[in-house]
Amino acid sequence: MKYDFSARAHTLMSSPLLSIRTQTRRGSVISLAEELPAEELFPLPLLAEAASTVISADAQALQYGDPEGYGPLREWLADDWLKGKGVHIPGDGVLLTTGSQQAVDLLSRVYIDPGDRVLVENPTSPGFLQALRMQGAVIIPVQGDREGLLPEDLREKIVRHRPKVLFAAPSFTNPSGILWSLKRRKEVLEACVSHDVLIVEDDSYGDLHFKRQDRSGSKYPSLYALEDAGEDGHVLYIGSFSKTVAPALRTGWAAGSRELIGVMAAAKGMADWQSSSLNQRLLYHLLHASPFNLREHIALLNREYGTRLKLMAELLKRAAWKDSTYDLPAGGMFLWVSLPEGLDAGILLKNALRKGVVFLPGPLCTADDSGSRYIRLNFSHPGRDELLLGMNLMSEAVSEFTARS
Amino acid sequence: MKYDFSARAHTLMSSPLLSIRTQTRRGSVISLAEELPAEELFPLPLLAEAASTVISADAQALQYGDPEGYGPLREWLADDWLKGKGVHIPGDGVLLTTGSQQAVDLLSRVYIDPGDRVLVENPTSPGFLQALRMQGAVIIPVQGDREGLLPEDLREKIVRHRPKVLFAAPSFTNPSGILWSLKRRKEVLEACVSHDVLIVEDDSYGDLHFKRQDRSGSKYPSLYALEDAGEDGHVLYIGSFSKTVAPALRTGWAAGSRELIGVMAAAKGMADWQSSSLNQRLLYHLLHASPFNLREHIALLNREYGTRLKLMAELLKRAAWKDSTYDLPAGGMFLWVSLPEGLDAGILLKNALRKGVVFLPGPLCTADDSGSRYIRLNFSHPGRDELLLGMNLMSEAVSEFTARS
Repeated sequence: MKYDFSARAHTLMSSPLLSIRTQTRRGSVISLAEELPAEELFPLPLLAEAASTVISADAQALQYGDPEGYGPLREWLADDWLKGKGVHIPGDGVLLTTGSQQAVDLLSRVYIDPGDRVLVENPTSPGFLQALRMQGAVIIPVQGDREGLLPEDLREKIVRHRPKVLFAAPSFTNPSGILWSLKRRKEVLEACVSHDVLIVEDDSYGDLHFKRQDRSGSKYPSLYALEDAGEDGHVLYIGSFSKTVAPALRTGWAAGSRELIGVMAAAKGMADWQSSSLNQRLLYHLLHASPFNLREHIALLNREYGTRLKLMAELLKRAAWKDSTYDLPAGGMFLWVSLPEGLDAGILLKNALRKGVVFLPGPLCTADDSGSRYIRLNFSHPGRDELLLGMNLMSEAVSEFTARS
Repeated sequence: MKYDFSARAHTLMSSPLLSIRTQTRRGSVISLAEELPAEELFPLPLLAEAASTVISADAQALQYGDPEGYGPLREWLADDWLKGKGVHIPGDGVLLTTGSQQAVDLLSRVYIDPGDRVLVENPTSPGFLQALRMQGAVIIPVQGDREGLLPEDLREKIVRHRPKVLFAAPSFTNPSGILWSLKRRKEVLEACVSHDVLIVEDDSYGDLHFKRQDRSGSKYPSLYALEDAGEDGHVLYIGSFSKTVAPALRTGWAAGSRELIGVMAAAKGMADWQSSSLNQRLLYHLLHASPFNLREHIALLNREYGTRLKLMAELLKRAAWKDSTYDLPAGGMFLWVSLPEGLDAGILLKNALRKGVVFLPGPLCTADDSGSRYIRLNFSHPGRDELLLGMNLMSEAVSEFTARS
């Protein structure tokens, strides 16, 4: 039969992300395209021990759980983790999700109707754009600079478009790696609060801060912590263990007003009943009852990722990149690099693929046409040798165009 | 701020399923309401060993995987499991999901636009109804009897409403426990094929067949196996390990035409990137490289569940139930019981709750107003003592009404 898909299913079918993944899987391609952490740093022995202990201890670990997720892990997040970041929230203000992307999707489903206007950074996360397009949102990019969103442009667009939501990642925006200044955080929050725009704040990369001196988070507080509204606040705070512990545990969270979390939990029940409570119990055991220390583990990741970033920055000093520009981020997983005038990211990708390397082309991160002159390079996953080889191939791919012109 | 939820979020907020769950969690209530397998039968030692082995063997087990799920488990399903049921499908025609409910939700999102008409059994699964309502479908119940859907009513409704999809569970329909006859299977398939109605066939309960003599499945083939269309077929076949191995692994699947599966996989990537590949690898190890035998394990479940069903049926012979009727199912997890004339399921629930027992009220399983005189009782989860106590409390709750009238 000829399948008659829904109207917005077509926004998914045209996704070039899929074809990049398919290409990458075909063997010996080096990927600078994805958002993967370095698997050689996973705490494998402690995870294996945690899994074995949790399963042996209690058959409930394999039973259905609650749509909201495993209670003790929600409490741990509220009491032991978020509080340290100035995020004050009760355990029942936390919903465990299948990674942070599901938190984004669930919020979109319960909050956005087709035609609703939604503000995003420019560039912004491909995951935001996919979920918003599927929901039929009208996506409006807000201009920014190295300090974060531009308050004038934000206010102007709020007044003109009356958006319902702003999606943002103030700490190491995917893909630009921008860390918003405190002043901008305050200005953005103030503009959204005064016009009742809900802020979806994705802090999945916030802990990957390579040079942080100040652990209290007072220099770069989350928008959630800045508002500190308790119930009825304007910020939904999203995070994940995917970048800090391991992605395959598929455990992210949304934290916020109990009313918002309650409706999202109902949507979660409808969507998949619940995420794996086995994985949630495993994480809780790791964090709570094993020698694993999450803060120390994150410090380890940051040392290694900081080194990889420096290596990539060194390699970008080669002649091929002389007409490219980028801002060196203080954290995150990505470099957002402009291409020389006239070189299109999609065309470069075809050439790079032939050479055996892939990256994320800019248009996947933009809601307007500004992305075609940019590429996103991931430095967290490739080991140093792979990074060197991958960047050699990238340099070759770029050179062939710049030499020609 | 006052949250401005999306139009269909309200279909979730009114869900009485949530309040039943909340009540059940508050301590000493016996639940005959849920869809839980018996946790005392989980293969815990083998699962603990599998988890430990899988995590220790390969850091990739903790890394991001593919939206489609772990390749070897998809191949195992295609080659070792589904083939034995007459379901011929290539590995890339299988999508791994977070339980069967996510397969239902993803198909709904990529196939159904608001206002599209969708056929369901009557009564039908609460999970179907929730996903369809969230998608804005117009839900049309089709009449059935002990043999399955009535072909005349089905054909009449196809012609009148031009539906896009039929959602059905021919083997042990949730909640009625009906096992469609072969004749009906053929008639329903034929009607849908001739009018290009896609069939979403949920076979999550199909293996829980207590008296099956014939393992080949030839007596009650799935609609998928009956059509055996390969690509472009009219049936999407859904199943799950939740009822046969353990729910907390959150591993279900959709199998069908590669075109359908491809679009659903793209939606899966948007919704949560992927389910836990750790859990999928753990399952694969259990099924492929451990002494665990899934067919033997299912036989063990069926002996125990068959015994619990008999016990429940015995307890329904008491005086309180003399004006109730039900059909004894040959499998599944539920009894669907009619209440005495004039007794409403919602009112009975309030009384039962006071006594310390809960069940699923019929209206959660019906798209029309036929459900209020029915209740769904689960016999798979409560142990024999709990079942006895729970049914004593139920009998009391019913007697108070029947004695009064």
